[in-house]
Amino acid sequence: MAPVPKHILNGFRVLDLTHVLAGPTASRLMAEMGAEVIKVEFPPLGDISRALPCIKNGRSSYYVQQNRGKHSVCIDLKSPDGKAVLTDLIRQCDVLVENFAPGVIGRLGFGWEQVHAINPRIVMCSISALGQAGELASLPGFDYIAQAYSGVMGMIGDPDGAPSFPMVSLGDVSTGAHAAAAIGFALLHRERGGEAQYLDISLLDCYTHYHELNIALYSMTDGAVEPTRCGSQHFAVCPLGLFKGRDGYVCIIALQPQWPALCRAIGRPDLIEDPRFATNEARVAHKEALIDLLQDWLTAQPSDDAALAALQAERVPCAPVLRISQLANHPHMRGRGTIRTVSDAKLGDVLMPGMPLRFSGFVHNPPLDALHLGASNEQVLREVLGYAPERIAALTEQGVLFANPDT
Amino acid sequence: MAPVPKHILNGFRVLDLTHVLAGPTASRLMAEMGAEVIKVEFPPLGDISRALPCIKNGRSSYYVQQNRGKHSVCIDLKSPDGKAVLTDLIRQCDVLVENFAPGVIGRLGFGWEQVHAINPRIVMCSISALGQAGELASLPGFDYIAQAYSGVMGMIGDPDGAPSFPMVSLGDVSTGAHAAAAIGFALLHRERGGEAQYLDISLLDCYTHYHELNIALYSMTDGAVEPTRCGSQHFAVCPLGLFKGRDGYVCIIALQPQWPALCRAIGRPDLIEDPRFATNEARVAHKEALIDLLQDWLTAQPSDDAALAALQAERVPCAPVLRISQLANHPHMRGRGTIRTVSDAKLGDVLMPGMPLRFSGFVHNPPLDALHLGASNEQVLREVLGYAPERIAALTEQGVLFANPDT
Repeated sequence: MAPVPKHILNGFRVLDLTHVLAGPTASRLMAEMGAEVIKVEFPPLGDISRALPCIKNGRSSYYVQQNRGKHSVCIDLKSPDGKAVLTDLIRQCDVLVENFAPGVIGRLGFGWEQVHAINPRIVMCSISALGQAGELASLPGFDYIAQAYSGVMGMIGDPDGAPSFPMVSLGDVSTGAHAAAAIGFALLHRERGGEAQYLDISLLDCYTHYHELNIALYSMTDGAVEPTRCGSQHFAVCPLGLFKGRDGYVCIIALQPQWPALCRAIGRPDLIEDPRFATNEARVAHKEALIDLLQDWLTAQPSDDAALAALQAERVPCAPVLRISQLANHPHMRGRGTIRTVSDAKLGDVLMPGMPLRFSGFVHNPPLDALHLGASNEQVLREVLGYAPERIAALTEQGVLFANPDT
Repeated sequence: MAPVPKHILNGFRVLDLTHVLAGPTASRLMAEMGAEVIKVEFPPLGDISRALPCIKNGRSSYYVQQNRGKHSVCIDLKSPDGKAVLTDLIRQCDVLVENFAPGVIGRLGFGWEQVHAINPRIVMCSISALGQAGELASLPGFDYIAQAYSGVMGMIGDPDGAPSFPMVSLGDVSTGAHAAAAIGFALLHRERGGEAQYLDISLLDCYTHYHELNIALYSMTDGAVEPTRCGSQHFAVCPLGLFKGRDGYVCIIALQPQWPALCRAIGRPDLIEDPRFATNEARVAHKEALIDLLQDWLTAQPSDDAALAALQAERVPCAPVLRISQLANHPHMRGRGTIRTVSDAKLGDVLMPGMPLRFSGFVHNPPLDALHLGASNEQVLREVLGYAPERIAALTEQGVLFANPDT
């Protein structure tokens, strides 16, 4: 593996006991920022995301996306020798991240108290669906489970039918970013002489935190108002919604300051002062008429691009609802590295999302490699732990260390 | 205002030139972590979120939620004297956060180059909808606009109709947390002798980063597979979806390891080996039959609670889709502080989301006050800038400083 890129977290070493998504996102963000990340996996399969689509030449693009830039050390943690290796690794790291179900890491012998005793300087971050403690903590945790409990799922979809869930891992990926944030602040505190922290980060807390208005609105009205989902048109702002264009869907928003601009953009300056539409309240009261009017205008345009250009010329907030193909190939996304090409030894070139944090003094989206299961066993045990080659060979022989080059 | 709480960011001072949501979220998270945050607002109205619902005794709960723990200094930045005050503040702060439309802060005379020249130690973070540069950067930016361009909106809703948008500010609030993360890493770098950074954080980058699979799947299949939205039932995993219970909607997930448990939970162990349902592939092929079967079982249960208890007893991942009232009053949420009571001088007690980052060594959800527009003019100019009382009085007299106690 190439050395870590010159970046903002150079000099920090992260022990990564995570799998699938939220945890690996947190440690991968740190790898992208130049931390030395040592991912610990378990025989015989390693992180189960190594089996998730798409697989090519034995390698999973799902795994690659979240594990570039990390060492892979594969240890049998059921053996005392395996536990001893992990204990030695804990001594040499600044951060430990894990996202087992709550309680599991403690039963393995590496809960916060044990880890803190092994290395009083290490920052430990546990990531879970519903939190480390409390009556829901022990439930099986998936992104959608936390989304449902957070009230976010209930705010999405047709008001007269079932909620719709997003086909994108809002909860896991975002919670990984929150965990990285907490780790960064804890390292800053430690750097200034403060004590090492234990961090309890959950999808539930992150999702619930997104309610910028709903909970306070319910509370301020003593329950008289209970916000809920409203499909593809906002219930209290008009126009704010999705319209069917000739090529796809288009999002159009006009708050009061944009209303005259929207009327001009659609060639209907006469509507600016029309009493049916003069205020947001009036527009909501005549919502159906206004939505029909905008829909008819959009349908009559030669293309969505032409419609969007007309709206944008008047600075009306609007956007095409991009499909994945359009997103992946959009010049703004490609030009900025919001979408980047990852070059992998087994997958070839694959498009993936770019790094969301951008620092002026460092390269954005540095190239990083993903590794096969156990690829770093020898290097890490020799260079980080100072084990002799014979000892590493013996651990490999005993099956305490494991590798699979076909991953 | 009470002194900042004893917390992890004590000793850091943040200059907060933000409004409405993404920016204020970033600086509010830092206030909750003990930073001294000086929010700069403009006469006569200040942050426009001071006019957003709900208003009580002249104060907005929307404003309070995102601006607790911040000083409010209200300065007329169009005047040279106002610009001089801001320049002096930049000299005394560790961080500057702003979320004007791209280019605006530069035209005010406080772009990164100017700010860096005034104070070479300050970290500056700009937050925008679509990024600081690139062909889309200058478009009017709202959360939903970035959501549409990111491809996330297109992944939500009925596949045969318009997308549904979430009635919760996923993009703004989450991007605020990402910005706080970037600021934390930049402060850590600076603490270790590194140069101050300029940070370009956008809703578009954060939203796009959530595609854990969609972009790579499209790319790996050379465009043969283009993932899209699938309503309330997953297109490729069964069962994974939402079912109508007697009291609300219920989310039920069973991947292969949970399939036997689900069959036992619904009293149908005979289905475990039923060839129609034995593998996920088979279940997807017989999706309609399986969904009907689960729906019928759920409808026949005495209550959603009873159904969930039966599923949870077998450790089948499941959850009620909570309404806002259920979320706000849930004992797990209240017990953990995922939902907390904020006590405001003008609003009284209001329920709001808790702080998503939890540190073992510091109080979670410390009490913090929101202030009226310009409440900190005198205190900040005297204590932070060392201005004499006469100078502050003159600036107030000239209208360079402004305050409105009725906010």
